[in-house]
Amino acid sequence: MTDFLALAQTGVQQLSPYVPGKPVDELARELNLDPANIIKLASNENPLGASPKTRAAIERELAELTRYPDGNGFDLKTLLAQQCRVQLDQVTLGNGSNDILELVARAYLAPGLNAVFSEHAFAVYPLVVQAVNAGARVIPARQFGHDLPAMLAAIDDKTRVVFLANPNNPTGTWFGPQALEDFLAAVPPSVVVVLDEAYIEYAVGGELPDGLDYLARYPNLLVSRTFSKAYGLAGLRVGYGLSSPVIADVLNRVRQPFNVNSLALAAACAALTDTDYLQRSRELNSAGMQQLEAGFAELGLDWIPSKGNFIAVDVGRVAGPVYQGLLREGVIVRPVAGYGMPNHLRVTIGLATENNRFLEALRLVLARV
Amino acid sequence: MTDFLALAQTGVQQLSPYVPGKPVDELARELNLDPANIIKLASNENPLGASPKTRAAIERELAELTRYPDGNGFDLKTLLAQQCRVQLDQVTLGNGSNDILELVARAYLAPGLNAVFSEHAFAVYPLVVQAVNAGARVIPARQFGHDLPAMLAAIDDKTRVVFLANPNNPTGTWFGPQALEDFLAAVPPSVVVVLDEAYIEYAVGGELPDGLDYLARYPNLLVSRTFSKAYGLAGLRVGYGLSSPVIADVLNRVRQPFNVNSLALAAACAALTDTDYLQRSRELNSAGMQQLEAGFAELGLDWIPSKGNFIAVDVGRVAGPVYQGLLREGVIVRPVAGYGMPNHLRVTIGLATENNRFLEALRLVLARV
Repeated sequence: MTDFLALAQTGVQQLSPYVPGKPVDELARELNLDPANIIKLASNENPLGASPKTRAAIERELAELTRYPDGNGFDLKTLLAQQCRVQLDQVTLGNGSNDILELVARAYLAPGLNAVFSEHAFAVYPLVVQAVNAGARVIPARQFGHDLPAMLAAIDDKTRVVFLANPNNPTGTWFGPQALEDFLAAVPPSVVVVLDEAYIEYAVGGELPDGLDYLARYPNLLVSRTFSKAYGLAGLRVGYGLSSPVIADVLNRVRQPFNVNSLALAAACAALTDTDYLQRSRELNSAGMQQLEAGFAELGLDWIPSKGNFIAVDVGRVAGPVYQGLLREGVIVRPVAGYGMPNHLRVTIGLATENNRFLEALRLVLARV
Repeated sequence: MTDFLALAQTGVQQLSPYVPGKPVDELARELNLDPANIIKLASNENPLGASPKTRAAIERELAELTRYPDGNGFDLKTLLAQQCRVQLDQVTLGNGSNDILELVARAYLAPGLNAVFSEHAFAVYPLVVQAVNAGARVIPARQFGHDLPAMLAAIDDKTRVVFLANPNNPTGTWFGPQALEDFLAAVPPSVVVVLDEAYIEYAVGGELPDGLDYLARYPNLLVSRTFSKAYGLAGLRVGYGLSSPVIADVLNRVRQPFNVNSLALAAACAALTDTDYLQRSRELNSAGMQQLEAGFAELGLDWIPSKGNFIAVDVGRVAGPVYQGLLREGVIVRPVAGYGMPNHLRVTIGLATENNRFLEALRLVLARV
């Protein structure tokens, strides 16, 4: 019988699919727990819950379910262009920013070419590179963060894409404006630099550069962002890329014509103007980050300082059994051994009560394992 | 300055994006018309409007917007497996069936390999083949339908995929069970046969084969279906592929982890069990098809008999000016010159009032151009 795995493209054969945070329902099924008693701090989701304004926008759109979405995303692109100080033809909409990352790989990578990214970087970078069977140059991290000079040194004449994440997931590490400027100034202008700012809305105080400030001067820069985190729309899958018009044109050629659905488009438009929700997301995140840091200090645990809506804690031993122990307590966090961080767990900042419950469960489990 | 179009992969450079049916809002903007007076029969959308059951399912899901979708689509796959008489591991969920078609191309095609499909076939087949820079063998149609023996003869040792559509879009043509059986029995077992059944729910009377009946005997068969047509969920983007487990495994490796969003998953589950809506969709379609055929006969126009929810009418002259004339009357249909059918327009079956309004506008426009 034909082996349809062997017939698949080489890169595809070797793909191991992305492992998402464990869904609440799945844990409930597996351990026979009441879903209502499970808390999930595993996928960097916004603990505030859905904004009433985005819910209302979706409900207004429900009558049009039988109609295809606007494949050009005119309304959302218009709002994004205004808010991000770019032209409409610089925007690419994605089915989550995952889609944007994949479009870049499919457009600019191929066997014989390579992409440069950091150790401990977002798992989707190696996946999209591998799917097109291109080479991956994974540069060792410095204190869990990007080693930008080493990444620069790793670029060769076959490098077409560099992925930077600021802040980085799952480490929460970041680099400042001068480091970005130095990097962009030195990178060959034919290399597409993807600056993944999925968590940028949580950054406060000017310590992180705003990628948009660099677009006009660097036509090889693509800034990717998402509505899944601070805007609270993970369930709907909306992300976007901002770049020079020519890169946006290329990505829009590869993009599926209706990659973002109509409820997602309507919700994203509403979310973009819901400044109150965004502000409350940030405040809740700052308070929760302090709460978790204080809790880790009390437990004598080390952690990686983070600018995201999550924090990676070093549990001082192989983290797998701690993760399993937390599951039995009804608390889902994210193991990151697959990211080369076997002793860490990544925990999303939750509501104050969720953070407490996690810290309490962690104390119990650590006493046991 | 770097030419980022020239740096894109060869296939990508040559892509012309899919041209969707003109959205109502876009026509309203362009011709300064009242959107409420525009009817759109351009995208094979379900004229019944959203089903109350699917709307209710979406509303129940709204509280969970901040949560990622279930990347495994457990509930929907379970329902589909039951209804389609397959196992869970034979199902691949797609962001519309467009996504399924693209996954097949990305998994099994590459430069030097080729795909076989028919003239006048769905525009997405050449697009997904071109995007991976594979070869396309486009086989001349017979009376606008697939010439299956000629397609079979065109398969060579570099052919990895054949796309069949039954019924075909935009022609509405179809082939019967024996023709499919003969084709599958003769095709080399290492060639993936994609049987695109996007419109199969409209087929009545056993004239069309049910692709599911062939899955057990042909491990190289993939049946793709969609919730965008008879199920009325075009806005939400849900499609699925059914195949042998190994092909499903390969496609799920390439699939984006959250390609189908949470509202779409919930709505599709509801739609699948909403047999009343499906039945009404079929009845409305049969009646509307008769209405349009009678109207065309009265206007002295020829048409291609169709088993879909649309019909291609031969307007007896180059159709572009007729299409433009209809737009000015506030009626959007689909020009199909890009499908090699310059004298045809494809018209979606609408409500009786919409069909009337279209026929009336067509009579006016034909008298003018």
